[in-house]
Amino acid sequence: MANEKIPYKIYLEESEMPQSWYNVRADMKNKPAPLLNPGTHQPMTAEELGGVFCADLVQQELDNDTAFIPIPEEIRNFYKMYRPSPLVRAYCLEEKLQTPAKIYYKFEGNNTSGSHKLNSAIAQAYYAKKQGLKGVTTETGAGQWGTALAMACAYLGLDCKVYMVKVSYEQKPFRREVMRTYGASVTPSPSDTTNVGRKILAEHPGTTGSLGCAISEAVEAAVSTPGYRYVLGSVLNQVLLHQSVIGLETKTAMDKYGIKPDIIIGCAGGGSNLGGLIAPFMGQKLRGEADYRIVAVEPASCPSLTRGRFAYDFADTGMVCPLAKMYTLGSGFIPAPNHAGGLRYHGMSPILSQLYDDGLMEAVSVPQTKVFEAAEQFARVEGILPAPESSHAIRVAIDEALKCKETGEEKTILFGLTGTGYFDMVAYEKFHEGQMDDYVPSDEELAAYFAQLPKID
Amino acid sequence: MANEKIPYKIYLEESEMPQSWYNVRADMKNKPAPLLNPGTHQPMTAEELGGVFCADLVQQELDNDTAFIPIPEEIRNFYKMYRPSPLVRAYCLEEKLQTPAKIYYKFEGNNTSGSHKLNSAIAQAYYAKKQGLKGVTTETGAGQWGTALAMACAYLGLDCKVYMVKVSYEQKPFRREVMRTYGASVTPSPSDTTNVGRKILAEHPGTTGSLGCAISEAVEAAVSTPGYRYVLGSVLNQVLLHQSVIGLETKTAMDKYGIKPDIIIGCAGGGSNLGGLIAPFMGQKLRGEADYRIVAVEPASCPSLTRGRFAYDFADTGMVCPLAKMYTLGSGFIPAPNHAGGLRYHGMSPILSQLYDDGLMEAVSVPQTKVFEAAEQFARVEGILPAPESSHAIRVAIDEALKCKETGEEKTILFGLTGTGYFDMVAYEKFHEGQMDDYVPSDEELAAYFAQLPKID
Repeated sequence: MANEKIPYKIYLEESEMPQSWYNVRADMKNKPAPLLNPGTHQPMTAEELGGVFCADLVQQELDNDTAFIPIPEEIRNFYKMYRPSPLVRAYCLEEKLQTPAKIYYKFEGNNTSGSHKLNSAIAQAYYAKKQGLKGVTTETGAGQWGTALAMACAYLGLDCKVYMVKVSYEQKPFRREVMRTYGASVTPSPSDTTNVGRKILAEHPGTTGSLGCAISEAVEAAVSTPGYRYVLGSVLNQVLLHQSVIGLETKTAMDKYGIKPDIIIGCAGGGSNLGGLIAPFMGQKLRGEADYRIVAVEPASCPSLTRGRFAYDFADTGMVCPLAKMYTLGSGFIPAPNHAGGLRYHGMSPILSQLYDDGLMEAVSVPQTKVFEAAEQFARVEGILPAPESSHAIRVAIDEALKCKETGEEKTILFGLTGTGYFDMVAYEKFHEGQMDDYVPSDEELAAYFAQLPKID
Repeated sequence: MANEKIPYKIYLEESEMPQSWYNVRADMKNKPAPLLNPGTHQPMTAEELGGVFCADLVQQELDNDTAFIPIPEEIRNFYKMYRPSPLVRAYCLEEKLQTPAKIYYKFEGNNTSGSHKLNSAIAQAYYAKKQGLKGVTTETGAGQWGTALAMACAYLGLDCKVYMVKVSYEQKPFRREVMRTYGASVTPSPSDTTNVGRKILAEHPGTTGSLGCAISEAVEAAVSTPGYRYVLGSVLNQVLLHQSVIGLETKTAMDKYGIKPDIIIGCAGGGSNLGGLIAPFMGQKLRGEADYRIVAVEPASCPSLTRGRFAYDFADTGMVCPLAKMYTLGSGFIPAPNHAGGLRYHGMSPILSQLYDDGLMEAVSVPQTKVFEAAEQFARVEGILPAPESSHAIRVAIDEALKCKETGEEKTILFGLTGTGYFDMVAYEKFHEGQMDDYVPSDEELAAYFAQLPKID
């Protein structure tokens, strides 16, 4: 073993867990652009946002200045149920690769939602409860976010209505069943429970739904039902704030053992995991205290950062949500029906988009088959079956470790292992059967979507 | 919180992990009865057992005297990949139940096999590799053991042939796919790859298989293929030895915080989890150093301890395996097709059978629906979706905690949470739909099986 003093898994003590979330916006010279009202194109006010989101969350969404926001005790107690998550030294993977690199990963999959999503779900549910609301609505595609929210709501005794993309609802009955176990109502979208759902059903009778449509239904259900608000699992500033718990724990664990990463790698769909993992490291970088290579990994089939435009766009396909300035493929972009699951989102967190545009992080896209090759290799030596999303980060971590093997450099690589793949075995099966699709959108295809981007002065 | 000093989760340091397994037989006054040759009814010799099992494992199987058997460094390193497992203080469950009882559980589900089975799988695979074998064969029903063995073999570069009960193979394609991800070959049983399989297929063309048939095929495949041995995931003495790592870690963690359990509860199918969890506590009890109430929980549909006979019986339905003296429902007993999964075994570990017969532990059986009610209640407050098997222990732990609520006693309850239920959502769905079966065998039914028990002098 490279360093006998560093254990396979570093678990912090409860007393070492973060007491506050870290808001990276406080240290950004160029703040993320504000959300705009889709009608007036003016910045959304707290009042406007308050019709859709809880009051405390609106405040967090708009706060570009406060660096540390205390985590309420109730949330910290819930975190203790499944956190701290382990920072794992990938000794077995290093040995398998015969690399001089030191590989670490922060594993967020050891809870029943199967991913990091629970970190923000409990926070959003807590503030909804605190405001005296009856319940929350949301959408889910792959199902991790819906499961996380159902768990948080069950814990707090809050009603939870999940609109699940119809094709997922039918193809992933087990995910649906987990949410039901946690007491959530799960409605296949489009449904006849909302105006927008009925309209879409009338226009497209056989449709299997989309995330954009599910968002529109969830938002309508929230604003039209007294005592309900809408919650979202990624993209928003507030979500990245909550997810900073990942990076804060990681940094505390690394500091404890005197480890400094050279490269930090994370998969990026809407950006919640990557934004959370890198937060305190990016903070140091922004303050000029340290430097790190930070790499966002996205699927080649949905390359928002690597091939998208940095522009104002709708967060949803239904165009009912506020406009966000972000790297986007256009809200009309329909991701290929491959298996990147939770990474199939046309846009990207405005915070990460700004940091990327400012040259503070890199981005790379990887094809699906190469991702599953890395997933299987990792599973066999590290004993964890990774989620397809997380495996994008594994792919690049392995590639970087193999470069070190060539150059002989003993780099320290850190990546985020966001979750487990227990509900993704259909995708693994396609991989084993050689039926995996490596679709990549053409320039012409993307140009057509870019042409439809809203014109904002 | 009842005691601020005790964290939600107690993780041992790597340096505190067990260096040796504990062999409870060394402290038993009445040793478990030896395995008998099914032809001669004489105790199986090391040489006879060596045709089926690896040499080191045969030695462990027959060793009734050595209390501590060192864990080879390679196995300890593998353990570090997913162990120590957390000892969890169920603060949230306690609060929900409003009980003065203190509830702890040892959670073994945080690895991709989803259960404690990996503790013995890596040990058995290691000794096979050490002996220079090419591979191992086994059977799997619910799929946890097959997955665990596939993981261990992938890690060591050993071939792994799994015979999976055909009905499971077809109904649980995701489990099969996880095993394939770990490089195992998975054959639906009965198959045309063995004599016994071909014979059964000819006699019962439409059969969906059984665990007994799969065992027979796996044993035949092992003894007829040079360089292969057969491995088993429960019942055997060697398996309970390896699983003692569960109890040893638990006891170290409890001792560290000055906690002494009043009641220790575990689910029992073949007995590997319960035997492992209680090992060091039972050792103290046997040596007269401490006393504990120890409770085995079994499904009412397959009540080996509570309604079975203590007698020599075949370990498999095919009657090719040695005879074991154990509590049994008869090797012809066909468990109801309900959802107790891994607990559907007609017999019980000879070690546990002896301890039970000597009055050193209790047993209780619980109906399926009550088990799932406890599972759902637990999932909602403790954030872990439990395996149906593990939920048998949860049921009794909750019942004991509720008794404390009535009496006001502040008992300390420890139970084993053996695994997660991610691959058991069909069972959860049946529960939600009110279609769960609470079948209990009649006395007449059992009497018919008892009449077929082999006559041993």
